[in-house]
Amino acid sequence: MTGPAASTLLSELAAALSEDRVSADPELLSQKAHDRSYHSWEPPLAVVQPLSTQEVSEVMRICQAYGIPVVPRGSGTGLEGGANTSSGSICLDLSGMKQIIHIAADDLYATAEAGVMKSELNAALAQYGLQFPAGPGVDASVGGMAATSASGTTAVRYGTLKENVVALTVVLADGSVIRTGSTTKKSSSGYDLTHLFVGSEGTLGVITEVTLALHPVPEASVSGVWSLPSLESAVALVVAALRSSLRLTRVELLDRLTVDALRRYTGYSAPVTETLMVEFSGSGAEVQAQYAQFAELAEQYRAAEHLTAADPEESRQLWQARHDVLPATLALVPGATAMATDVCVPISKLPECIAETKADLDSVDLLAPIVGHVGDGNFHLAMLLPPGDEQALARAKEINARLVDRALAMGGTCTGEHGVGIGKIGPMSTEHATALGAMRAVKSALDPAGLLNPGKVLG
Amino acid sequence: MTGPAASTLLSELAAALSEDRVSADPELLSQKAHDRSYHSWEPPLAVVQPLSTQEVSEVMRICQAYGIPVVPRGSGTGLEGGANTSSGSICLDLSGMKQIIHIAADDLYATAEAGVMKSELNAALAQYGLQFPAGPGVDASVGGMAATSASGTTAVRYGTLKENVVALTVVLADGSVIRTGSTTKKSSSGYDLTHLFVGSEGTLGVITEVTLALHPVPEASVSGVWSLPSLESAVALVVAALRSSLRLTRVELLDRLTVDALRRYTGYSAPVTETLMVEFSGSGAEVQAQYAQFAELAEQYRAAEHLTAADPEESRQLWQARHDVLPATLALVPGATAMATDVCVPISKLPECIAETKADLDSVDLLAPIVGHVGDGNFHLAMLLPPGDEQALARAKEINARLVDRALAMGGTCTGEHGVGIGKIGPMSTEHATALGAMRAVKSALDPAGLLNPGKVLG
Ligand SMILES: Cc1cc2nc3c(=O)[nH]c(=O)nc-3n(C[C@H](O)[C@H](O)[C@H](O)COP(=O)(O)OP(=O)(O)OC[C@H]3O[C@@H](n4cnc5c(N)ncnc54)[C@H](O)[C@@H]3O)c2cc1C
Ligand SMILES: Cc1cc2nc3c(=O)[nH]c(=O)nc-3n(C[C@H](O)[C@H](O)[C@H](O)COP(=O)(O)OP(=O)(O)OC[C@H]3O[C@@H](n4cnc5c(N)ncnc54)[C@H](O)[C@@H]3O)c2cc1C
Repeated sequence: MTGPAASTLLSELAAALSEDRVSADPELLSQKAHDRSYHSWEPPLAVVQPLSTQEVSEVMRICQAYGIPVVPRGSGTGLEGGANTSSGSICLDLSGMKQIIHIAADDLYATAEAGVMKSELNAALAQYGLQFPAGPGVDASVGGMAATSASGTTAVRYGTLKENVVALTVVLADGSVIRTGSTTKKSSSGYDLTHLFVGSEGTLGVITEVTLALHPVPEASVSGVWSLPSLESAVALVVAALRSSLRLTRVELLDRLTVDALRRYTGYSAPVTETLMVEFSGSGAEVQAQYAQFAELAEQYRAAEHLTAADPEESRQLWQARHDVLPATLALVPGATAMATDVCVPISKLPECIAETKADLDSVDLLAPIVGHVGDGNFHLAMLLPPGDEQALARAKEINARLVDRALAMGGTCTGEHGVGIGKIGPMSTEHATALGAMRAVKSALDPAGLLNPGKVLG
Repeated sequence: MTGPAASTLLSELAAALSEDRVSADPELLSQKAHDRSYHSWEPPLAVVQPLSTQEVSEVMRICQAYGIPVVPRGSGTGLEGGANTSSGSICLDLSGMKQIIHIAADDLYATAEAGVMKSELNAALAQYGLQFPAGPGVDASVGGMAATSASGTTAVRYGTLKENVVALTVVLADGSVIRTGSTTKKSSSGYDLTHLFVGSEGTLGVITEVTLALHPVPEASVSGVWSLPSLESAVALVVAALRSSLRLTRVELLDRLTVDALRRYTGYSAPVTETLMVEFSGSGAEVQAQYAQFAELAEQYRAAEHLTAADPEESRQLWQARHDVLPATLALVPGATAMATDVCVPISKLPECIAETKADLDSVDLLAPIVGHVGDGNFHLAMLLPPGDEQALARAKEINARLVDRALAMGGTCTGEHGVGIGKIGPMSTEHATALGAMRAVKSALDPAGLLNPGKVLG
């Protein structure tokens, strides 16, 4: 798009929104041109900041008329370049859409605009004794979480965004506005468009409002840190727990390297071995009973309890360690950055998948602590890229490619929660084979001109 | 399609499958031409009974070449005419596809061919201490349950088929075979085609294999029957339970008329008033604690315990009453048939929706006991159509239409679990408004010639 055409586009957008919410300021352009990943980007033509569904609809209508690609953006915490822009596109920044529209406490759902952060929603829910526990550990926008089908430590209990998005307001490529789903607990009425948009990473439509399932804040919780003799026993213990009447709220695996990193970074004192962090929550009597039952099971797998926490403050401290993993890992190599991987395999394949990956890591010169949402079979390496080591990223990419192949060969998926973005387009054809054709057919049906986040998910 | 063309089609199908699995026997044609509903049907050209995905693929390829509509059929227990055929179509009867392909006990999933019945799957799972608890009370095929997004009394705990279908093998309209989803617990890889096919009622593809999430058989359970002073208090009690740390496995509402019918039909002795049947399950200690906590809560809502059952046999008897509701209802008017309704509303709207519906029923001369999956806001009327009363069906249809309008006005859905089929096409445009256009675009993308179950879901 040449200069004059671009400036007509921008003035049309400015007329539809307002002068100060359509910007071509170079600093803002670079700031909003990328997420938290290592993937490449180019500054967009403009950053557009709508404040309502109606404004998003007008932006889409105008961009459709000009044939301009639109890259939706939430809070930009993505790890696969999903929100990265290329030159000639528009960054559609939804972070200003901050209204919590409705909290239906008795019906256990809330509707919020796309830019509302998970933390903001939870702050508003607290007075009702309710929470939105699903989603990533890091704070992110509800629109972005829905768009990536995010999840995290609590997925073992509460599921992912797939299980927690009830309904959506979506602006389609041509600017038309649709409402998917229903605020009822269930429905068999028509095609499940909600789930089609969840995880579509801005390539099928722009999510402007998200209706989410809420959950009661548990009365009590008990957490524990357990040391295991091996990866196999750690996974076997988790499988046994999942097959029992236990109800884990969280169960996280930390490998030796991660534990070592935490010990160096904080006052963490657990022995340097494969470690499980678990949490049970519910009523007071129940969580005690559940924890005791878990302890009995743990004994069979030669697990040793390192720490337990029943009061909220102790528990918060215990889980803080899990949140410190990334900074602690980065602190291992001063000045390093980290590249995150994100495969998920059937749980029974986890020990084999992790062991082979560790062997692979040993063969190149990369330090990569491993943490896993072990109840879901999902794990992450944080591959440390030392400053000045120009080859490190290339080696990390190779490790990642082999890891994805390994996971797919084991019946796994190339991404458990971070999404495809730019980074996982390669494995899509291996993972989905002929289903990729059906995905492309759906994409063409909803975005015939291919203007919504082009180059992402399907390539 | 004229006689000679039809006979060429049939012989091509017979060549692809085998002579005895392509039938135009009039008795079989009528038998397989309809489900359990009151909706109209015409005998199809033939009933085709494939035994493998490959055979389904060939049937679709041949029917595509001839431009012949295909109506997939599972076990034919549907209630909205979804599997009803019209003349000139083929009934694709999947009930012969009976293989349980894989049980991954440690990974908590199983893959079964479409024709496997829920009871057959559960029988195979028992030896692993696992179960597939989701789906309707009546026995149905896993393909049909997935195709309708079925659910039932256990949805409050385990969710619907939406939450329990992990992956699918689907034959598309052109005969191509795709595998959707992944056998991992979660994935953010590409569009969620699995959920697109779940609930699509045979209009987007033919499901030939279903991978389902499994759940451990609970160690223990406690059930109870509670009498409530009013509908409002019954619903308020359930809402309070859902907002607490209680974990209901089942919670069913029976109205006075239903209780009365059960008392006449069986040895049921609960007082004739609004009644809740509840179940808690888990470890022994836990279910006792949960039941005690529920009893405390129940007192606040002036509920009186009528019966409790902790041992498996007592519990089975207690829940038998719920399964006797349909025959007991039918027995109220000898020779009558029943027309079922199926709306779902946000739970807080349930008392109002049911009360207004009762008033509406009183205004016409129809007897209609009401049962509800109250934890989901989903309820059913069984409107009794006395033999010889030619106007009864017309009156029932009017009640149903007004009920659907009422539910939609309350933010509800026209079908909580039975699906759209033929019966709910009318309200689709009111319920989905502009989203219907997106549904149609998806349908055209996947079935451009419109040969998959035409006239259903989208009309
Ligand atoms: C330290 C750290 C830890 C993390 N931990 C986790 C974790 O535990 N689990 C996990 O799942 N992820 C994790 N992530 C990744 C990230 O937080 C999630 O992917 C999150 O859901 C992204 O939300 P966002 O609002 O930041 O989206 P963005 O990064 O802004 O966008 C992500 C994608 O969604 C699209 N998008 C955003 N908003 C919309 C919208 N309204 N409509 C349509 N499309 C939209 C974008 O185009 C892009 O493709 C982590 C990231 C970091 C930096
Ligand atoms: C007494 C009674 C009680 C019931 N209770 C409940 C209940 O509690 N909850 C509930 O949800 N339902 C209930 N139902 C309705 C019915 O049991 C469900 O809809 C069930 O899921 C239908 O499964 P089926 O195999 O019988 O499907 P069918 O009736 O054969 O077909 C239903 C629909 O699915 C399509 N279909 C079937 N198999 C496939 C396939 N393999 N691929 C693609 N499309 C396919 C058909 O074309 C049709 O549109 C009840 C029915 C009866 C008679």
